[in-house]
Amino acid sequence: MSDTPSGENGIGIEPDAVAEDARVARTRADVSRAALEVLTGEGWEAVTHAHVARVAGYSKTTLYTHWPSRSDLLTMALEAIGDMPHHDLVGDVRTDLIGELRMLRDAIATQRLDRVLMAMAQWGATVAEIGRVRRRIVDDGEKHTRQMLGAVIQGPELEAAVSMLSGSVVCPTLMYGTLPDDATIEAAVDILLRGIGR
Amino acid sequence: MSDTPSGENGIGIEPDAVAEDARVARTRADVSRAALEVLTGEGWEAVTHAHVARVAGYSKTTLYTHWPSRSDLLTMALEAIGDMPHHDLVGDVRTDLIGELRMLRDAIATQRLDRVLMAMAQWGATVAEIGRVRRRIVDDGEKHTRQMLGAVIQGPELEAAVSMLSGSVVCPTLMYGTLPDDATIEAAVDILLRGIGR
Repeated sequence: MSDTPSGENGIGIEPDAVAEDARVARTRADVSRAALEVLTGEGWEAVTHAHVARVAGYSKTTLYTHWPSRSDLLTMALEAIGDMPHHDLVGDVRTDLIGELRMLRDAIATQRLDRVLMAMAQWGATVAEIGRVRRRIVDDGEKHTRQMLGAVIQGPELEAAVSMLSGSVVCPTLMYGTLPDDATIEAAVDILLRGIGR
Repeated sequence: MSDTPSGENGIGIEPDAVAEDARVARTRADVSRAALEVLTGEGWEAVTHAHVARVAGYSKTTLYTHWPSRSDLLTMALEAIGDMPHHDLVGDVRTDLIGELRMLRDAIATQRLDRVLMAMAQWGATVAEIGRVRRRIVDDGEKHTRQMLGAVIQGPELEAAVSMLSGSVVCPTLMYGTLPDDATIEAAVDILLRGIGR
């Protein structure tokens, strides 16, 4: 790039700097995607500079230069997660809560959201940046459930209810290595709705 | 040990072999304890041959000879976990369920049972031996809750209820990095008991 003519581009930024920014942005997008692919495909312990560099098609040096720590790579992977999957609400609380839990279960099975959850649990406690990304992802994941239940209960009851519903899917995954079937998800929602007086 | 006199000890086992077995058993006990200490103190990713050998005061070579893989070390750490902490049952279902959940919460805070849970979740899915140890630990942890609820509900309802109660403690830990307060634990138990018609 040393033979590129230098000069103003009218908005006071060197063309070289613009090209450089675009290059870094492209690299960041590629590396983020690769890091997320490794995270969901193999688990966070595989998210290393060497492995992500190989998958992204960049040199290890490039990765270390821009994102020196493993937590930088994990943060990028988590940031690359788009919106959480949601059920299309139909307006009936029972149907919609069951739909949300099925969606969570299916995202664990097909998109390995359990690996995302484990990375967030493991790193969110010690790396503030990952704690913030976790908050965003969890808030997005819970928003419909929290909104539906928040119309009826608040405070500790609401917190308990949201965790109980998530637990009906997440606990079997972590504790037995199995996912709940439809009957178990429906039973969880029915217990909850009766329990909060609906 | 080459100068130890060889000969029968009356039950047909060489004394050297007996001494050797005792040595291995002692080493195993020391290494298991050290592996569990590293697991709960730092998390499973710190359970490596080099680190556990240092903590246990043995050579890396000794560890590699007897327990060649990391999953061997993790299995030993998990096997070294004694019985799960339990609340002393008083015979009142509400009090006893709240007591069990508080005990789980306190074990996460003080004994870092969350790190045990994460190790089991991460490794239990791929290493059969760890899957078996996980089953024993989870069964022991859930036994009182499952017994109390099993007197009233069965099948998918029982599975949902057990996971919902565990979830009221485990989900905030993993998803927000916080532990539920007493009011939230009591709310969870009350929702559940109303929900199953108690």
